[in-house]
Amino acid sequence: MKKLTIIKIGGQVLDNEAKLKAALLDFSKIKTPKILVHGGGKKASELCQTLGIEPKMWEGRRITDEATLQVVTMVYAGLLSKKLVSQLQALNCNAIGLSGADGNLIEAEKREVKQVDFGYAGDLKKVNKKLIINLLDDGFTPTICAITHDRKGQLLNTNADTIAAGLAAALAKEFEVTLKFCFEKAGVLFDPQDDTSIIQKLDKINYTNYRNNGVIANGMLPKLDNAFSAKKHGVKEVYVCDLLGIKNKTGTEICA
Amino acid sequence: MKKLTIIKIGGQVLDNEAKLKAALLDFSKIKTPKILVHGGGKKASELCQTLGIEPKMWEGRRITDEATLQVVTMVYAGLLSKKLVSQLQALNCNAIGLSGADGNLIEAEKREVKQVDFGYAGDLKKVNKKLIINLLDDGFTPTICAITHDRKGQLLNTNADTIAAGLAAALAKEFEVTLKFCFEKAGVLFDPQDDTSIIQKLDKINYTNYRNNGVIANGMLPKLDNAFSAKKHGVKEVYVCDLLGIKNKTGTEICA
Repeated sequence: MKKLTIIKIGGQVLDNEAKLKAALLDFSKIKTPKILVHGGGKKASELCQTLGIEPKMWEGRRITDEATLQVVTMVYAGLLSKKLVSQLQALNCNAIGLSGADGNLIEAEKREVKQVDFGYAGDLKKVNKKLIINLLDDGFTPTICAITHDRKGQLLNTNADTIAAGLAAALAKEFEVTLKFCFEKAGVLFDPQDDTSIIQKLDKINYTNYRNNGVIANGMLPKLDNAFSAKKHGVKEVYVCDLLGIKNKTGTEICA
Repeated sequence: MKKLTIIKIGGQVLDNEAKLKAALLDFSKIKTPKILVHGGGKKASELCQTLGIEPKMWEGRRITDEATLQVVTMVYAGLLSKKLVSQLQALNCNAIGLSGADGNLIEAEKREVKQVDFGYAGDLKKVNKKLIINLLDDGFTPTICAITHDRKGQLLNTNADTIAAGLAAALAKEFEVTLKFCFEKAGVLFDPQDDTSIIQKLDKINYTNYRNNGVIANGMLPKLDNAFSAKKHGVKEVYVCDLLGIKNKTGTEICA
């Protein structure tokens, strides 16, 4: 079975030019077919503020009104996507930047209004993997941002971790997939203040325990839910790590 | 030889929701393989002004400083590209939005500084048609914005008419190409104030005459230079027309 590496980079990584450059160099050197999934970074929030749109968050997830959707579409699918693609191209990595709307790659549905109305936030419904498989076979490196659509003409803002996990799960039948969620911490930590306190391996039982006693909390919860979901759907290796994890097996390995 | 239709829409068409919707519906009904090329519209200038960046133009071409490049990348490759793609997807047209950097589709070079420094303006150097041909063969509709790159990591702002003409010329060996430049006028006009004064057919000799005596001037000149360039490179049919031209043969036909 052919190997496939999916790297998700997000948040603060995208805001630091030097770190991003090093990360893209490491990424470009990955020898297996590969996919880059990227989140947003500070730029979208900054642009919202400049334009007088107050960023609204609820439990680490952005609430996306019409004006915010325009901003995240501009920043994720425009500025960041093309910046990453042009820098990868300069490294001889034949990147192709796509949103979930392009080629109907990722269908989503507007999140149902329950406790909170997330606005134009989309939950992943279906990955149409044929386009991705064709592009990988032709030597391209899909570079995917966190904008999806509902196939009825509405763009939707979707969590980038969820997209990475969904892509990995969808491709697990065709490829031996390694999925790495790379962010600013060295892995899942016992103590968020101590970057050396890495939990080396995390299985579902330990996760439930750590979650119940508050060792793992806040923004780590949706990330790990996505990581375990990918593992459950047949993704061979799943890691939560920092940028060193792009070329090495570092950080926290998620176990079935 | 297989047919291919390339439609370029730009300017005011993109700023009118109702007209754009009708244009996309007509476009989605084109039965041959097809490509949509789009320019910018007012949104980029508006966003520049909101952000305190003064739009600078010279002979109808934008001067692109660093801040302006960020805005046009956001608006063309982000907001407009994904809006067009999601609306076409809703019409069952499997659109895929690309810039020239994606898959190294269009290489350009920063325009040489002569009389004017155009900043990050790129002149078309090479179209890598394999990706486009593969996508067309697979039933996708490439939807291409006017952002290119230099393959050294620099994005460049490129004239959308030039991109449409360059794509048409590059694909003229594989396809019987019809290229239509659709804009707000009904065609090339004898009298710009009279929308019925359409020049039905325009060949190079007449063009030179009209140009010399001032009948054709200003923004029409680069558009027609692109149109004649496409014709010279083997594009079968070239029209300059309004949105009615998407489904009909109206406007001005460019003749060899």
